[in-house]
Amino acid sequence: MDIRIERVSPDKAKKKPEGALGFGKYFTDHMFLMEYTTGKGWHDARIVPYGPIALDPSAMVFHYGQEIFEGLKAYHAADGRTLLFRPDENAKRMNSSCHRLCMPEIPVDTWVECVKAAVKNDIDWIPTDFGTSLYIRPFMIATDPFLGVRASDHYYFIIILSPVASYYESGLNPVRIYIETEYVRAVRGGTGFTKCGGNYAASILSQSNAHTEGYEQVLWLDGVHREYIEEVGAMNVFFKIDGEIVTPSLEGSILPGITRKSAIELLTKKGYKVSERKLSVREVEEAADAGKLEEIFGTGTAAVISPVGELKIGGKHIVINDNKIGEVSSWLYNTLTGIQWGRIEDKNGWTVTI
Amino acid sequence: MDIRIERVSPDKAKKKPEGALGFGKYFTDHMFLMEYTTGKGWHDARIVPYGPIALDPSAMVFHYGQEIFEGLKAYHAADGRTLLFRPDENAKRMNSSCHRLCMPEIPVDTWVECVKAAVKNDIDWIPTDFGTSLYIRPFMIATDPFLGVRASDHYYFIIILSPVASYYESGLNPVRIYIETEYVRAVRGGTGFTKCGGNYAASILSQSNAHTEGYEQVLWLDGVHREYIEEVGAMNVFFKIDGEIVTPSLEGSILPGITRKSAIELLTKKGYKVSERKLSVREVEEAADAGKLEEIFGTGTAAVISPVGELKIGGKHIVINDNKIGEVSSWLYNTLTGIQWGRIEDKNGWTVTI
Repeated sequence: MDIRIERVSPDKAKKKPEGALGFGKYFTDHMFLMEYTTGKGWHDARIVPYGPIALDPSAMVFHYGQEIFEGLKAYHAADGRTLLFRPDENAKRMNSSCHRLCMPEIPVDTWVECVKAAVKNDIDWIPTDFGTSLYIRPFMIATDPFLGVRASDHYYFIIILSPVASYYESGLNPVRIYIETEYVRAVRGGTGFTKCGGNYAASILSQSNAHTEGYEQVLWLDGVHREYIEEVGAMNVFFKIDGEIVTPSLEGSILPGITRKSAIELLTKKGYKVSERKLSVREVEEAADAGKLEEIFGTGTAAVISPVGELKIGGKHIVINDNKIGEVSSWLYNTLTGIQWGRIEDKNGWTVTI
Repeated sequence: MDIRIERVSPDKAKKKPEGALGFGKYFTDHMFLMEYTTGKGWHDARIVPYGPIALDPSAMVFHYGQEIFEGLKAYHAADGRTLLFRPDENAKRMNSSCHRLCMPEIPVDTWVECVKAAVKNDIDWIPTDFGTSLYIRPFMIATDPFLGVRASDHYYFIIILSPVASYYESGLNPVRIYIETEYVRAVRGGTGFTKCGGNYAASILSQSNAHTEGYEQVLWLDGVHREYIEEVGAMNVFFKIDGEIVTPSLEGSILPGITRKSAIELLTKKGYKVSERKLSVREVEEAADAGKLEEIFGTGTAAVISPVGELKIGGKHIVINDNKIGEVSSWLYNTLTGIQWGRIEDKNGWTVTI
């Protein structure tokens, strides 16, 4: 693929952030752009100085939410290499989002090539401390200046890069969550399995209510029965119950997380019994009552592993593992981050060197 | 409210479209903008030349779909007045969307004032033929340059204006629809009752499939039972069954349409039995089998009334009222458009003169 590169002039280059990086606050000097036009396909791939995007106010992305994104990271390995973690999985998932949202797919190899080129061009922006990384945000937006509801005929595919610490400022400390009973994130037949903007917009109110009440996240239930567990916040969720590790099965309303998939593979290889199945609130509550609810943790690209220390079900507060990080959470966090930052041998061929 | 007006320079004014207007293709010379900043509230209301909006590529609207809109029209009345139709209802509904999407509300009076100012400023753009109008698109978008998932601290409220014919190029001809059984538009606890972008993004694939199969719209079922009727395409839907007019009750997943509300009020006053209640596919099918399914029609701002001539349920094709426009559809269309274009006395105080 031919990617035109226009580098920022030295006097316009940004000063790299010092101190706390946070998440998604700072952006590198450049961004990758590519355009799609019906009848012409993807064209005009380029890397240009990071800057505003000018769109007609009638651009479809502002009205009908035809927008999808992905999230992955570039890691500075101990030996100086720059690593990506399973970028082909992100490419495939974006294409799955494309299909559901009637947007144009990008071949997996091309997609990964775009990501690599973007990272390579701003490689000196990758922070080097363990735990820090360059967060990569590829996204696609519909730009036709037209107010009818239909698929757009023109799109931008853009990649922006942000040096980040970890998503949760409190780090690996266990979080407090409660079960969301009023609002629903997604339902089968909808867009829950995609990374489209609408899913996240629908979740903000619950998240805001949770913060107001002193919780970090909400636990989402399915939209049909309001009984089966789906996700926690913007992460997949795992439960260790009486030695069995259970995570909700993918049935169209749950995001097929890449950290989720990797966790299942690692835990299975390690010899744990891992089940992808329906898990009801009642089962979790009964396990807690019987003293068999051993761990809960979320998985996601941003936070990797997020242990849950307290779960509120109705009026009942369940403390998990004495509000300490559990053995499985801890092992998974160390293993995944070890592979991602090149400190543990990657026996699965998951990392890609740039 | 203080609205700064910067008029387009005469040499930059656009040529007004000649011939077919279509829907949402042409835009007037100006647009209204207002900004919200947390701690400061709404500020900097202004009318400026219509043109691109420049946003940081990390602006939240591109990633997390925090975006809502409204749609209403300005009508050129027979006596030369410019009329709006129940604009306060749009303002209230937008505030309801704001609440669900964690966006800042705008007082109803202020909202209507903004719309009036925008229309007044481009009043010579209102087409004058009966059936044509100036479509008004107020929308609000989240613009914080930040990749964390939370409510934005900065928003634009924008109003753009588009001279339009009618939404459906085929006019009042009956449309063909089928029941969507694979995809779901919304579910209780979600965002179905709002006009947020995500709802529309989720609907595009079904709509596209319907067009491919030779249908104009799909009939959406509820996300829980997949049995109760919700909407048709992007409109509310009414059924006349054995003399009773039935429309699905508002239970959180259906858009509370202003044309829907007006139709219910007009039909009730006219003496029809109108029921807002759950309506199952089975009931519709049984009514058709018994020869009691007399009419189906959609209601919405864009199309006003859209009669349905054929409904496909599974493998069965049901022809409604011999594929002709029904008595109720016809009366409602004439009454509503009569009021909107100032040809019939407005006994309900629905129209507002600019």
